[in-house]
Amino acid sequence: MLHSRGGLHRGRGMEITLRAVGIVHSPFKEKFGIPRQSGLVPEACGRLELLPPYNRPEAVAGLEGYSHIWLQFVFHQAIRERWQPTVRPPRLGGNARVGVFASRAPYRPNPIGLSVVGLEAVVVDGERVSLSLSGVDLLDGTPVLDIKPYVAYADSLPQARCGFAPAAPPRCLTVHFSERAQEQIARRGDGEGLRVLITRLLELDPRPAYRGDEAQGRTYGIRLYDFDLRWRVTAGRAEVLELAPL
Amino acid sequence: MLHSRGGLHRGRGMEITLRAVGIVHSPFKEKFGIPRQSGLVPEACGRLELLPPYNRPEAVAGLEGYSHIWLQFVFHQAIRERWQPTVRPPRLGGNARVGVFASRAPYRPNPIGLSVVGLEAVVVDGERVSLSLSGVDLLDGTPVLDIKPYVAYADSLPQARCGFAPAAPPRCLTVHFSERAQEQIARRGDGEGLRVLITRLLELDPRPAYRGDEAQGRTYGIRLYDFDLRWRVTAGRAEVLELAPL
Repeated sequence: MLHSRGGLHRGRGMEITLRAVGIVHSPFKEKFGIPRQSGLVPEACGRLELLPPYNRPEAVAGLEGYSHIWLQFVFHQAIRERWQPTVRPPRLGGNARVGVFASRAPYRPNPIGLSVVGLEAVVVDGERVSLSLSGVDLLDGTPVLDIKPYVAYADSLPQARCGFAPAAPPRCLTVHFSERAQEQIARRGDGEGLRVLITRLLELDPRPAYRGDEAQGRTYGIRLYDFDLRWRVTAGRAEVLELAPL
Repeated sequence: MLHSRGGLHRGRGMEITLRAVGIVHSPFKEKFGIPRQSGLVPEACGRLELLPPYNRPEAVAGLEGYSHIWLQFVFHQAIRERWQPTVRPPRLGGNARVGVFASRAPYRPNPIGLSVVGLEAVVVDGERVSLSLSGVDLLDGTPVLDIKPYVAYADSLPQARCGFAPAAPPRCLTVHFSERAQEQIARRGDGEGLRVLITRLLELDPRPAYRGDEAQGRTYGIRLYDFDLRWRVTAGRAEVLELAPL
């Protein structure tokens, strides 16, 4: 053991202990419904709050010059004792298996994720230092291990060959709102923003890739903000039924 | 504590213990001289060897369909007990300070790095599973915490605004080889490849950004493979003096 914390321990494999530098506040209160990569829904906004002792304005000085940042984070609701060498990505219909290192699935040997998100603002308010984010694909409460600027000359590779994920998933559903849902949305503060967010999320068809015929007409729920978004799909059309209180 | 390993420990901050899934073998035996981002020197090749129990061919099945991969790794020679909120990046001349989260510097609250590298081949040989890499900016012996495919539709943002790193660093030096260095290189197996690698590394001017007049004509050493590359700069020209044995 080189150090008591933050060090690299040799012995049964090399281990390292890391501490969260921040925590994400996002509309997504459960995994179901979260876009399957960052940036797919730019309207999905969140906030990264730096935790003590990292809540120092100097620590983010200069970050406002960057439009995007990388977050290295913990998949805190995907921690398992055992790892599996293969996963079944939604992109392959949820049936075919690929290696866990050939996927971005949350269940991995080390439960850490990587997302590039939009940086809308750096907010310093006394001892509170936070970053306003867009395009998030992160669960509320996600612990963040590191923040790095997006450096396009190194990170942007538009010509990269991308196996089974060559293009963004299609927006395959049209989205309609019931009268009840429309009224509920209108009564909220940011009605129009919320309507757009829900539309962009459901267009992507968040239903499990592998599903039987009963998926037609079945009512699904997605926990967003302080409500349960109730919706169903019939014939390529998603219908928002209501925003049920949690 | 949720789990004994791989778990998230609450208490004095949220902590998580991660274990290396692989280790990098690279030509770079010290930090000095390593390109300051991945991809800057495509000729810098390396090998990522999966460590037991992760050395399973199934764990990388499908990865061969991707031209590039992300490595999340430990800056194992940049681990310090204390963190500093600011750093002095070479891009700003080594003098101006920016927040540690606005830089990709190795000294960070959590000593973890992020590099996208070329995936040249997936090699399975009995119980040895390794990935042949290009464009590496990684020290020999770097522990890797995770491997993820590069997904261009999410990761490639050519229009991103990039603060103080808007473009790749210039190749500001021309590189010449002494007769002695030419002979030494010619005697090695991959002479031409080595000559190109050295040229590409020195063109970037690896000297410390902040330096006095004594940098002119001073002899520098870079530990590469099994030798110490001896070189000096005079009037915009890098001259390779010799490959001294270590």
